[in-house]
Amino acid sequence: MARPRNTESDALILAAAAEALLQDGYDGLVVDEIARSVGVAKTTVYRRWPTKNHLVVSVVAGWQGVVDVPNTGDEADDIANDLTTIAGGMCHVLDPAPIRRLVAELAAARMRDDDLGSAVDRLWSDRRAATAAVLERGIAGGALRRDLDPEVVTDELAGAVYYRVLITGGSLDDAYARALVRTVLAGAR
Amino acid sequence: MARPRNTESDALILAAAAEALLQDGYDGLVVDEIARSVGVAKTTVYRRWPTKNHLVVSVVAGWQGVVDVPNTGDEADDIANDLTTIAGGMCHVLDPAPIRRLVAELAAARMRDDDLGSAVDRLWSDRRAATAAVLERGIAGGALRRDLDPEVVTDELAGAVYYRVLITGGSLDDAYARALVRTVLAGAR
Repeated sequence: MARPRNTESDALILAAAAEALLQDGYDGLVVDEIARSVGVAKTTVYRRWPTKNHLVVSVVAGWQGVVDVPNTGDEADDIANDLTTIAGGMCHVLDPAPIRRLVAELAAARMRDDDLGSAVDRLWSDRRAATAAVLERGIAGGALRRDLDPEVVTDELAGAVYYRVLITGGSLDDAYARALVRTVLAGAR
Repeated sequence: MARPRNTESDALILAAAAEALLQDGYDGLVVDEIARSVGVAKTTVYRRWPTKNHLVVSVVAGWQGVVDVPNTGDEADDIANDLTTIAGGMCHVLDPAPIRRLVAELAAARMRDDDLGSAVDRLWSDRRAATAAVLERGIAGGALRRDLDPEVVTDELAGAVYYRVLITGGSLDDAYARALVRTVLAGAR
């Protein structure tokens, strides 16, 4: 049986790409330089990742890892805490300027390229699913209104954070996550 | 006194750029082609708009025009209606795929270029100010909670819409605007 050489060079390429992104940001990642530094042909990289952005998505997916669903209980305060944990995690991950830049580039690239689009969508879907799971637990246990549409509430929570990341540039920290969850739960009226 | 020739060619360039954007989308706007079609030197365009994205921002600002602050009254239902008008307007403007694409390119370009960033920020700030004005009227008149932070509520409303535009690709229509405003006002608890 042939040795899976590709897996090995894939890992080296991903590690080099991650280092370039961390050190020099989005513009600092140049596929040809990655190939040279790892000692593989450019075509080896492009066969696995058709564009720079495909490679970036793989790196970010590795950073993100598995998104846990927090579960401290079914009381109203527990649901609020669990939502704050998710929102706080998003604020923490997305606040640094280089990450904001990455997210913006991926959001734009997602629309230029359908194939890349589905890879990018998988990046956000884990945290979205975690939010929905907490909301559904809150509805089932009576902590949240029965007629609630979890999708709209997820849009409010994640939307506010991404709006600051991509549109207003507003700061993101634990205090903001708490204020956001409090306002989403209590309502404006 | 010299005739303000630049104003005239600016208007021609903007009209040609708007037509290109409408017909062929973001990629269809090529600055050199705009200059040729209007009969000016490329440098004339670049002196006024240093990059393609500066030109795109000027076109979008022209399309957007003045954002009115809706004001049907100070009762709770009036505030809800006025917020639904703003959210519905955003959904209507931002739903078409070519516009989503434009917004994504501008959000990414905004981070690459500080100078462009402030021009793009002015694009979103009008609608944001209109939302804040309605919320402050609601707080002052007692329709909304006194301890409300209008900025957080604006993030929830505009954020949910931009999140669908840029991240999830979810659909945006009047029904969504109504559901969103209802959920933001009533709260999830």
